[in-house]
Amino acid sequence: MLPNLTPDLTLAKELFAALREASRDGEGVTRDAYGPGERMAHALVREAADRLGLESATDAAGNLYMTLPGADRGAKRIILGSHLDSVRQGGNYDGAAGVLAGLAAVAGMKRAGFTPGRDITVMAIRAEEAGAWFPVSYPGSRMALGLFKPDGLDIRRQDTGRTLAEHMREEGFDPEAVARGEHALGPHNVAAFLEVHIEQGPVLEAEGIPLGIVTGIPGSRRLRSARVLGEVNHSGATPRKYRRDAAAALAELVYRMDEEWCRLDAMGHVLVATFCTMATTAEAGFTRVAGEATFSLDVRSVSPHASDLMFEALHRLMAEIEARRGVRFEPGPETGSRAALMDEGIRAGLARAADALGIRHLAMASGGGHDAAAFAEAKVPTGMLFVRNQHGSHNPKEDMRMEDFAAACAVLQRWAAEAAQ
Amino acid sequence: MLPNLTPDLTLAKELFAALREASRDGEGVTRDAYGPGERMAHALVREAADRLGLESATDAAGNLYMTLPGADRGAKRIILGSHLDSVRQGGNYDGAAGVLAGLAAVAGMKRAGFTPGRDITVMAIRAEEAGAWFPVSYPGSRMALGLFKPDGLDIRRQDTGRTLAEHMREEGFDPEAVARGEHALGPHNVAAFLEVHIEQGPVLEAEGIPLGIVTGIPGSRRLRSARVLGEVNHSGATPRKYRRDAAAALAELVYRMDEEWCRLDAMGHVLVATFCTMATTAEAGFTRVAGEATFSLDVRSVSPHASDLMFEALHRLMAEIEARRGVRFEPGPETGSRAALMDEGIRAGLARAADALGIRHLAMASGGGHDAAAFAEAKVPTGMLFVRNQHGSHNPKEDMRMEDFAAACAVLQRWAAEAAQ
Repeated sequence: MLPNLTPDLTLAKELFAALREASRDGEGVTRDAYGPGERMAHALVREAADRLGLESATDAAGNLYMTLPGADRGAKRIILGSHLDSVRQGGNYDGAAGVLAGLAAVAGMKRAGFTPGRDITVMAIRAEEAGAWFPVSYPGSRMALGLFKPDGLDIRRQDTGRTLAEHMREEGFDPEAVARGEHALGPHNVAAFLEVHIEQGPVLEAEGIPLGIVTGIPGSRRLRSARVLGEVNHSGATPRKYRRDAAAALAELVYRMDEEWCRLDAMGHVLVATFCTMATTAEAGFTRVAGEATFSLDVRSVSPHASDLMFEALHRLMAEIEARRGVRFEPGPETGSRAALMDEGIRAGLARAADALGIRHLAMASGGGHDAAAFAEAKVPTGMLFVRNQHGSHNPKEDMRMEDFAAACAVLQRWAAEAAQ
Repeated sequence: MLPNLTPDLTLAKELFAALREASRDGEGVTRDAYGPGERMAHALVREAADRLGLESATDAAGNLYMTLPGADRGAKRIILGSHLDSVRQGGNYDGAAGVLAGLAAVAGMKRAGFTPGRDITVMAIRAEEAGAWFPVSYPGSRMALGLFKPDGLDIRRQDTGRTLAEHMREEGFDPEAVARGEHALGPHNVAAFLEVHIEQGPVLEAEGIPLGIVTGIPGSRRLRSARVLGEVNHSGATPRKYRRDAAAALAELVYRMDEEWCRLDAMGHVLVATFCTMATTAEAGFTRVAGEATFSLDVRSVSPHASDLMFEALHRLMAEIEARRGVRFEPGPETGSRAALMDEGIRAGLARAADALGIRHLAMASGGGHDAAAFAEAKVPTGMLFVRNQHGSHNPKEDMRMEDFAAACAVLQRWAAEAAQ
């Protein structure tokens, strides 16, 4: 029999407001990874944990652990967490919602005098927004789990040009310990990891359902700095057969990859394929045939096979367009991450908790990548709970209704109380 | 019976070298219209004309006239000319070759003691490189011919942001006289206009023929600042059906317009259609679906019907893509110029002169626009002679062999001597 628990939403709302106020950047918020923005957010959350009387600690990577002690301190713990950094000019909820949901849940337990059977730790993870700061997937959680390859410490933050190791050292953390493979977490000491996160996409809003129980997190195959080289020519004086038009070549690639996505979609493959950027370069201009264009490509799927099919099409189409249009594609280095499935026991537990509370939920694949993928890769039983949100994410208009967040906190709290028994 | 004339190639070579030296800009040359670069070139050429004993004059627009007096000073004159400005980081021959060919021709006449039947004027025209400086077609020649609309004086130079009138005034010219419609030239006082110009395209080089006799100059229909608006979204979390992807929409437009060009080409329509630039905007970035992209389009044909067919396709495709992809195209203002046919008598005269000199030539349409189009529009009998060149034009690698230039000078000189009888 579970006690009658409610999350401390007042605390969460106060923290959301304080975070927004301290990281406001024009219309949106900016909390830079391993920089002043993330530092501020961690300090603010730690202070709240201290006020609640939680045990706080940080690891070599700077991840913050705020623990409500359980009856059996030696038992594997439950971790509730997400990240506190944001993209540049992002929204206030992407990441922070998961940390604040954890704090609201344990604050409610504390208030009710509830002692869980095992430790429940709220974890604030470092540097999840890889696309915005360090071009590497989930460095904070991967360092905590011993999955981070030491050469990743040499990767440079895209705005400052300084390495991840330099940034970590500046913030008072220990990249050398990370390089030695020291790490705090693994399946030996974590019973389950649960991440609450805004959906980031429009599905829950369109379906009119407040919560999503995530089935899996897609892996990705990515080109971040690809280009196509042709030849600059006079746009009036160069007949079709003499052209090596980089703009036309890139347009054909983008269009035909989109057709390929449609085709795979119709065959039942679930994936997304996005040319996030494409641009003729500075030497292009009016009355010139473009001699060079750059592009980036982001392919994601829970099924590695589907991503592979898109990349097979990519290489086939690039070769075909090269031969026909006299251009040369330089795809540049490929990066990516592995897909991860969520734990079936946790999914069932979340559904049970939501049903008991009368909250509607939808089983759905994640679109974006999340720290939860690193925990799943480390073989920690892992789950994710999505909160309906508005206007997507990674932009200043990102939004979330507080009643939906409250629903997520209630499900999280109930699930954690049961799982910690 | 024509006298035995030869052009003064030494003079032309000296002037090419002096021009290049004074306008060198990294690997290429830059001679800005109604600015220091063009001013330098006009001063240098005028000084050479003074040394040759030609009569020099400028008009309200700053066009320079260097005249070898004929026996009948009241007869309609022959004009040999082109422009002296260049694009930014362009080549040394685009434009200048036509002015220097004229000077080489009349210098040779002077040296031989030849007095033509009527005045032969070498004209250095202002500001032809509309794509690079003032976004308006042929302002210098159109002002000389009374074809320039006064509101064009308010157009701003793209780098300085100052108007054409301001730039003209700074260089000591008289935009008010232009606005009043005062002009120096027309069919009443010009018997023929001939422009020597590098081909700018690869056709003569590919065919192994030194000279082209131009049949016509294409008109154009242009979008210089078009864009497509979609919605920024998370590239992982936004399924296909919820996307309004500006990059995918633009790629489809570019690819399908290219297909349309192929189709018209196969039906025998002669045109070129170029998306000179295309780019997702600054808010685009990795892990985002692009919310906006910009592009420019340059369609040219000697046949207005062919250009119109492309623009019909453009508007049909934009509407179709808007409906299917949930985006909105904003084509922005359309600019352009009318096509012009070259005078058949002049074409025949040029062919006769080349045949007499044993120089191979090809009849061909121009690809680019030229000042000659303005003369043709003003009903002045007009011709153009193309010189084989290498590496296109409007770029630092643009090149021309001096023996090909010499062939053009010889044909020009022989034709002018005959036409001035």
